[in-house]
Amino acid sequence: MSVLSQLQESLGALVDTSRASLEEARADRSGHAAAGLPVAVVHAESVEDVQQTLRIATATRTPVVVRGAGTGLAGAANAGTGEIVLSVRRMTAIREVRADDLLAVVEPGILNADLNAELGRHGLWWAPDPASRDISTVGGNIATGAGGLLCAKYGVVRDAVLGVDLVLADGRLLHLGHRSVKGVTGLDLTALVVGSEGTLGVVVGATLKLRRLVPGDTCTIAATFPGVRAAAAASAAVTAAGVQPAIMELMDAASLEAVHALLALPAPTTGAAQLTIQTDGPAARAEAEAIADILRAHDGSTVVSHDRTEGERLLAIRRSMHAAMASLGTSLIEDVAVPRSAMPAMFDEIARIEREYGLRIPTVAHAGDGNLHPNFLFDGPEVPPEVWAAADDLFRAAIRLGGTLTGEHGIGVLKRRWLAEELGDDQWHLQRQIAAVFDPLGILNPGKVFDA
Amino acid sequence: MSVLSQLQESLGALVDTSRASLEEARADRSGHAAAGLPVAVVHAESVEDVQQTLRIATATRTPVVVRGAGTGLAGAANAGTGEIVLSVRRMTAIREVRADDLLAVVEPGILNADLNAELGRHGLWWAPDPASRDISTVGGNIATGAGGLLCAKYGVVRDAVLGVDLVLADGRLLHLGHRSVKGVTGLDLTALVVGSEGTLGVVVGATLKLRRLVPGDTCTIAATFPGVRAAAAASAAVTAAGVQPAIMELMDAASLEAVHALLALPAPTTGAAQLTIQTDGPAARAEAEAIADILRAHDGSTVVSHDRTEGERLLAIRRSMHAAMASLGTSLIEDVAVPRSAMPAMFDEIARIEREYGLRIPTVAHAGDGNLHPNFLFDGPEVPPEVWAAADDLFRAAIRLGGTLTGEHGIGVLKRRWLAEELGDDQWHLQRQIAAVFDPLGILNPGKVFDA
Repeated sequence: MSVLSQLQESLGALVDTSRASLEEARADRSGHAAAGLPVAVVHAESVEDVQQTLRIATATRTPVVVRGAGTGLAGAANAGTGEIVLSVRRMTAIREVRADDLLAVVEPGILNADLNAELGRHGLWWAPDPASRDISTVGGNIATGAGGLLCAKYGVVRDAVLGVDLVLADGRLLHLGHRSVKGVTGLDLTALVVGSEGTLGVVVGATLKLRRLVPGDTCTIAATFPGVRAAAAASAAVTAAGVQPAIMELMDAASLEAVHALLALPAPTTGAAQLTIQTDGPAARAEAEAIADILRAHDGSTVVSHDRTEGERLLAIRRSMHAAMASLGTSLIEDVAVPRSAMPAMFDEIARIEREYGLRIPTVAHAGDGNLHPNFLFDGPEVPPEVWAAADDLFRAAIRLGGTLTGEHGIGVLKRRWLAEELGDDQWHLQRQIAAVFDPLGILNPGKVFDA
Repeated sequence: MSVLSQLQESLGALVDTSRASLEEARADRSGHAAAGLPVAVVHAESVEDVQQTLRIATATRTPVVVRGAGTGLAGAANAGTGEIVLSVRRMTAIREVRADDLLAVVEPGILNADLNAELGRHGLWWAPDPASRDISTVGGNIATGAGGLLCAKYGVVRDAVLGVDLVLADGRLLHLGHRSVKGVTGLDLTALVVGSEGTLGVVVGATLKLRRLVPGDTCTIAATFPGVRAAAAASAAVTAAGVQPAIMELMDAASLEAVHALLALPAPTTGAAQLTIQTDGPAARAEAEAIADILRAHDGSTVVSHDRTEGERLLAIRRSMHAAMASLGTSLIEDVAVPRSAMPAMFDEIARIEREYGLRIPTVAHAGDGNLHPNFLFDGPEVPPEVWAAADDLFRAAIRLGGTLTGEHGIGVLKRRWLAEELGDDQWHLQRQIAAVFDPLGILNPGKVFDA
């Protein structure tokens, strides 16, 4: 009996072979798509559905690509010929919210924003806030180790997950981690699963570490600089001065121009770059004033707002970046991260690469944590060789500056060719062997992260 | 040529076979000691020394026990017959301190307190603060995933390590992790090494995530309650109310009596338990008042101090617990952690176990994060069977309440018999296989964590 027949016999109407669903599962938001069409999309509605799908996959040695909302930017959830797509998007239950223990237990398919809307009713939030939070799932956030705007102050996903329930490739269910603040029983497999991009197992539940909603004001500072290097130096100076913003976003001139055009705002000063900074908590106002002083000392034309609505308006410019890039054509969105002091040097490298390769690379950065998103613009659907060559140059520059080739998007298919370069061959082989302990047949997301 | 001869030929005067050194390496602060004497103590002074020792160990299939200051409480660094002790205690260099990037690169043998004294000169600190910080090494803190008093507010070791340099069993050196705030390149092996208790490799360097020294006041609240259950309920109420103390320590009546006797203070009221709480940061005073109100509403006789010296005096009572227990005879120090709401129920279980087994179990707790240290008192050097039976009962109770058998001390030898019970057999076997990827010959800390 074929794989498809076995899936249909076992999972009935959950097995979807419509052309539209198969096509959709080929691609994510990176623009990249897998070759060919997958066998089927299984819309799992329970842990048992996930286990049953994996039992069939193991018995038939069929590759499985786990998928949430498909908002990834590295191609990790793209499925092609011969692969089963295992969607957990329908598993959206919030099983438990405990304000007294600052934890929630959730299913993986719930959207980050939907979870936080519910948590807000309890005075709580889950801190990871990728820019995609309105459309990305908690399971996807965990699988990619997603970052966001608030990481310097409020941590990354790894800091906000206490445990995960993981279905292995052979269908067995493991409970990893704990519900207590502390716990060092054995190896920390929860942390290993965060960011593993579907190569170790399927996350079917997560125990999340929550925070109380932050009391007090939110202040927003917008500052315009003569150029991107000055803006980068100013943001590094803020970090070096010991003030901790909640958000510190940098936009270079090309990004700012594109967003202003998209939103039909007056054109910005030619060459001007912008920092948008938010402070929160009990010292928000004092911190905002201290930051404004630093920015002015770095030639920043600076305004401070204590109004939340005005703050959201200022941040909306940054949040429109993805749409603005889409309006300019096709782009390869990169994701290097460097130590914060190296940000000005990284912007110099990007300017050099633009010149050397004759490319436009509008760049935004989570300047509070040193994570840059250079957008390599090009025409047509396929990434041209000179863009790959420029990206290669970019990655090497980031590593030279003490950085990493991906801060929050992951390796997927788009960066796997550079993985061994950053890890070193010994560590790369060690990581593959660890993945093989979880998935000895190699049926979980083959060809992703670790190139076959 | 014997292992010892090979070590001596290769490492010369770094190889120590004095009776005193060999005896010392048999035991840690748990009171437990390994059987027999190890082959030698190698006092590594460089990464190359560590690599050379491990090459010889691999070539000769000799077990290696890595050791820092020997302050562990689970026997993980105890070495016995036929084993090489690899001490990294002499590797104390601070290679780099970067205030602008909030990171430091250090060698593993430096004491936590010595590191923080140096960081303080830069206005910085490394948040992990095990009670042993004056005598324990950073490498040991990483190897055990050590906790401490400040974890609820400032996180655990896993949150404060960006990368580690790891020498594998065969002597190869790997650089794991990154220097940037974000980084999701491949599997998070850094987090896997934290808390791995010497089973995966030897940490020879660490890139630590630092914090700025917290500005503002430190306020200390001391409250006395009629009994331990009332104190536990009051501490859970503080957490549930959404105020975040930096420190919240609980002492039961037996602990309080023992410390008062040790310090020659007036005897406390019979049966009384105590909470000692500190708040810090810009809202310290307001938070202290809010907490005092909650404690008074829970029958706590409460005083608030805004004086740092007075605060340290109040905390000194808690910090004298270890010495007070030692003055009472031998004790088995346990380390269960439960969700914070379950603390009153956990104290009920401890009272039940005291009655059922006819034991005295003075207990202190890091009440802010639900981590309890019951001290099982007994006579003589060996843990008697009824104490093991009572400890078994304790672990099962903690797991029933959603907790874990070790919050911060680790598994070592003292808790390995319960590891599979908490993890489940499937996860236990998976963890062993992962350790075997790092150490295929099984020469790193054999018999620890995963019982052979």
